Amino acid sequence: MGNNGRMAFGKLVLLRHGQSEWNASNQFTGWVDVDLTPQGREEAVRGGQLLAEAGVLPDVLYTSLLRRAITTANIALDAADRHWIPVVRDWRLNERHYGKLQGLNKAEIKEEFGDEQFMLWRRSYDTPPPEIAADDKYSQVGEARYADLDEVPLTECLLDVVKRFIPYYEAEILPLLTAGKTVLVAAHGNSLRALVKHLDGISDEAISELNIPTGIPLVYEFSESGEVANPGGTYLDPEAAAAGAAAVANQGGK
Amino acid sequence: MGNNGRMAFGKLVLLRHGQSEWNASNQFTGWVDVDLTPQGREEAVRGGQLLAEAGVLPDVLYTSLLRRAITTANIALDAADRHWIPVVRDWRLNERHYGKLQGLNKAEIKEEFGDEQFMLWRRSYDTPPPEIAADDKYSQVGEARYADLDEVPLTECLLDVVKRFIPYYEAEILPLLTAGKTVLVAAHGNSLRALVKHLDGISDEAISELNIPTGIPLVYEFSESGEVANPGGTYLDPEAAAAGAAAVANQGGK
Repeated sequence: MGNNGRMAFGKLVLLRHGQSEWNASNQFTGWVDVDLTPQGREEAVRGGQLLAEAGVLPDVLYTSLLRRAITTANIALDAADRHWIPVVRDWRLNERHYGKLQGLNKAEIKEEFGDEQFMLWRRSYDTPPPEIAADDKYSQVGEARYADLDEVPLTECLLDVVKRFIPYYEAEILPLLTAGKTVLVAAHGNSLRALVKHLDGISDEAISELNIPTGIPLVYEFSESGEVANPGGTYLDPEAAAAGAAAVANQGGK
Repeated sequence: MGNNGRMAFGKLVLLRHGQSEWNASNQFTGWVDVDLTPQGREEAVRGGQLLAEAGVLPDVLYTSLLRRAITTANIALDAADRHWIPVVRDWRLNERHYGKLQGLNKAEIKEEFGDEQFMLWRRSYDTPPPEIAADDKYSQVGEARYADLDEVPLTECLLDVVKRFIPYYEAEILPLLTAGKTVLVAAHGNSLRALVKHLDGISDEAISELNIPTGIPLVYEFSESGEVANPGGTYLDPEAAAAGAAAVANQGGK
């Protein structure tokens, strides 16, 4: 990590879950709690091996409340021999809620509504998709895991994710980083985009172009004053990361 | 659970990990961090299914720092759709440290030292096995996960486990039970024996006869005043539990 001879930095390790069942079937997922595919589990193992090979050893884990991130973390930490570290789970790390699109096929939505509307729903910073009905089978209203929320979302845009996640990050995670800890955040495409936007000061427009690959740890180093020492972060497998980002950008194709 | 018409009770759910690699090879394990076998993973799935079928839904998980308990909990909670609950890991839930016996074959120890010495080491309440050398390959001295301990044990008897685990249980877990929560404790043969001894007021002598089966949830119900409402607890699969306890009692045979 280029840290030789410098004092130890806090490290924030971002890990996006690997392929889920609905990634494989090309459906919008959001807060629907689908499982990883076997390929997704292999990605998690590889992510853990990359951590171990790089000597990036998490002191604490933060996950969302969704199975695909939780299982990714479980598998990766087991592969890195760090299965025993403390765990914190919080809904604020959840994927963006995709509203009425949850459960629908991406290619069909693209065909029905056109490229422009599709990309707006997928990538607009502040325009959420239409709300899901509270009693829709893909709504999370009433789920026990969200009992502490004043209101379970019916849709979200990326700005909504920024508003729920960044204050939580600053209150709970950043103090660990400035104290020199290594923190693993196992989460989702859009909750990680919200965090990277914040860390790298990416504009509301430019964030739509950012694609975070699955299963490849992205490491940010932090000074004691809370500054990012390596803007843009460092992927533990840069070549695979570049190929993975391109694959994500291409989602929605048939 | 016979709770119909009564007010909701706190529930303490004890789950002993399933078959590990060293259970299969008949070696003393203790604090050595071996993995589950495929059979052990199947036991964990079944444990989670039993929880779901009985409607016993944990609000919070406590595990040891050992992989076989952690993975058992991960698998069982996933099977019960409770993968998202808060997690606490603590070394006080660890298996008894088996001292110099760690890594040695149970049948060979029995043959070399005789039945009486074997059973004394295995089941004496207050006589620990000889200490392991701090630099033995099966010692845990210096492991990062135990960095917070004043001293990593070199051997333990069941009394030592009682002394480390019961005060922790009373301070951290019992208050959740009297508040009506359902708490899953995923742990080990001897840490669970220490707890059951405490819960059921079993004598130092009689506890040597108690064998807790693997993979079958054992549920204790608690009144608001912290009393156990169902002394002895209730296995979610009583027939399998009886067969499992007999199998455990027979360990050490060739």
